[in-house]
Amino acid sequence: MTAQITLYAGKTCPYAHRAEIALAETGLPFKRVEIDPRNKPEWYPNVNPRGQVPAITYGGPDHPPEKPSPEAEKLAESLVLVDFFNDLAPTILSSPPIPSAAPKPATSSRPLAAATPRRDKLLDGIESLQALLPATSKYAIGDEYTIADIAATPFFARLEVALRDDLGAFAQGEGLKPRDSFKKTWHEEFVKASYAVRFPRNQ
Amino acid sequence: MTAQITLYAGKTCPYAHRAEIALAETGLPFKRVEIDPRNKPEWYPNVNPRGQVPAITYGGPDHPPEKPSPEAEKLAESLVLVDFFNDLAPTILSSPPIPSAAPKPATSSRPLAAATPRRDKLLDGIESLQALLPATSKYAIGDEYTIADIAATPFFARLEVALRDDLGAFAQGEGLKPRDSFKKTWHEEFVKASYAVRFPRNQ
Repeated sequence: MTAQITLYAGKTCPYAHRAEIALAETGLPFKRVEIDPRNKPEWYPNVNPRGQVPAITYGGPDHPPEKPSPEAEKLAESLVLVDFFNDLAPTILSSPPIPSAAPKPATSSRPLAAATPRRDKLLDGIESLQALLPATSKYAIGDEYTIADIAATPFFARLEVALRDDLGAFAQGEGLKPRDSFKKTWHEEFVKASYAVRFPRNQ
Repeated sequence: MTAQITLYAGKTCPYAHRAEIALAETGLPFKRVEIDPRNKPEWYPNVNPRGQVPAITYGGPDHPPEKPSPEAEKLAESLVLVDFFNDLAPTILSSPPIPSAAPKPATSSRPLAAATPRRDKLLDGIESLQALLPATSKYAIGDEYTIADIAATPFFARLEVALRDDLGAFAQGEGLKPRDSFKKTWHEEFVKASYAVRFPRNQ
């Protein structure tokens, strides 16, 4: 039997979503506990003293969500968890690991150099996206239309078309033919309802 | 009479789109010349020796697109053009300039410090988005699903919901009630058709 995994995750949280996709991709068995990131239960620091989702307990006996066993390991940080699941799965499920973001040694004619800048730009961009999620202000940096809106809008418009129409790289996850690990872990109506409350439509 | 402006822009290009939005916002009169960024006419270096769109000629006599007047100024770089139009418009149209991205001196109770990190994150993010537009590879960094996809997908999914449903800051430009300067300058069907050819649907 494998050591127990209890995942504490919130459906709206993109960081928690990373951990959930990794669990779905690896096929590791786990117990899921929903934590509203904006309204955490008062016992949650027993799981993660820093108070953030995602977090897991690993090993030790089964336990009620609010009382993690002292014998269980406690881990947090989304990318740490993704790596942890990815290292763990092959040892107990004999499944191959998900390739890391690092380019593999060149076995084809495609030069290594071509992959590296794209990867770096991508990883830089991911964190920036957090700042670009809906804001409570009307425009990019406040309630006034500024040069920043002119600079940003053309990129958002094209990104939206690309995402919506399932064209190109990322669409695999969100478009007409979503990957299974995404389908299982994406609660669109829940996220929409939450955004509608948190970021009321302007006007 | 105001000095002539001839804008060389491509409908698919987000950089050119910045210049077009700025022209629409300022109301400056201009002549538009469509340049396909992926198939530029052989005379285009007469306008911009570096070969990029957007570019403008400014001043001098009216001229055919392919033969800019030696008396006309030639300018390029999207953010340079946005600033140029924004500086020019108030001098000839007595319209107020579009506020720059810099936070204004604190006249309200809102502290300056709150606006600055958000603006910096935003401007960092804008350039990164270019790398995130549809790619010819199947996934984030190649044809294989990797940890980078797990890291990125949760953010794209939420961004897509925010953009599609007109919730929050950026939706003003693209959603149910688009800003006029956006409506006039966004050729969605053209961009979609172009993406469909350039980035064929996987599978």
